[in-house]
Amino acid sequence: MNLLAVPGVVGVDVTPATLGSALERVDGLASAVLDTSPLRAGDTLVIISLSGRNALPVEMARTARTRGVKVVGVTSVAYAAQTTSRHNSGTFLKDHCDIVLDSKIAVGDAELTLDTIPAPFAPASTVVTTALMQAVLATTAAALADRGIEPPLLRSGNVDGGHEWNSRVMTEYGDRIFYRH
Amino acid sequence: MNLLAVPGVVGVDVTPATLGSALERVDGLASAVLDTSPLRAGDTLVIISLSGRNALPVEMARTARTRGVKVVGVTSVAYAAQTTSRHNSGTFLKDHCDIVLDSKIAVGDAELTLDTIPAPFAPASTVVTTALMQAVLATTAAALADRGIEPPLLRSGNVDGGHEWNSRVMTEYGDRIFYRH
Repeated sequence: MNLLAVPGVVGVDVTPATLGSALERVDGLASAVLDTSPLRAGDTLVIISLSGRNALPVEMARTARTRGVKVVGVTSVAYAAQTTSRHNSGTFLKDHCDIVLDSKIAVGDAELTLDTIPAPFAPASTVVTTALMQAVLATTAAALADRGIEPPLLRSGNVDGGHEWNSRVMTEYGDRIFYRH
Repeated sequence: MNLLAVPGVVGVDVTPATLGSALERVDGLASAVLDTSPLRAGDTLVIISLSGRNALPVEMARTARTRGVKVVGVTSVAYAAQTTSRHNSGTFLKDHCDIVLDSKIAVGDAELTLDTIPAPFAPASTVVTTALMQAVLATTAAALADRGIEPPLLRSGNVDGGHEWNSRVMTEYGDRIFYRH
């Protein structure tokens, strides 16, 4: 699995912090990133967006599918239902996926309330989304193994033989692991 | 809570992907970042490192404490016990904290095994670390409210009045929120 980086959107250290949200509303950004990516027909693209309401995830999903790419959306159907689309089609990420993994996070992403605090707080979306993604990778590994294919998993560099293990995977799958560029 | 960014280390989109791990072993990097940060005595610094074995988290914790900063380390004591330190002091992040939040992740960060897959797989550290951090923030908000202080929490921009709410927090705490630089 490779990261398809959208500059200014995927980094946690982007400044100003509000730039990422602003870029999510820019039409054409998704297509520019796809045009210059190594993604090809037959690949699977995982798109993560809590509401899926913005131009970036909607355009990314629609454009990728026209190129023969399978789209998995990790998004909240309930969240989308409580907001309006910001894409000119009026649709959400959930509407353009081969598979939707529904995080079921409620609008506002705030799980707790307390009498002494004037608004709900405590977001859960990162924990739930990460758990979903790890579950997908683990079950995919098991499914490949069932078919007699050794899943190309990387190991921690802190365990004995970890670096040698990873070097073998990097060599064998080097043409599909884009960690240098 | 602000991000103290270490260039090349905190971003998920750093290339090559191996650069982050290499930078964690560079002596002097932590001090250079602290020297140029707005961190001051009385602040709390949260340092996240699974093993805490590398120069960056160890030096960051030690240097911050000499400046009167409280250090919270989110790390695995069990992981540290199974590795050797890469810092010239021979110590780990856990040895230089005012509070250790122990993620208890086992060495290798791989929770599952399967007869048909030749190595353990399925890391849990991101889920556990994120849940710990959200629990800290939620309990801190409640503790502040108990003292009669309204916790300066931001809200989702997708809920009614969210933007106005956030503008008020940004104005009131503007001198301690570093989201532009």
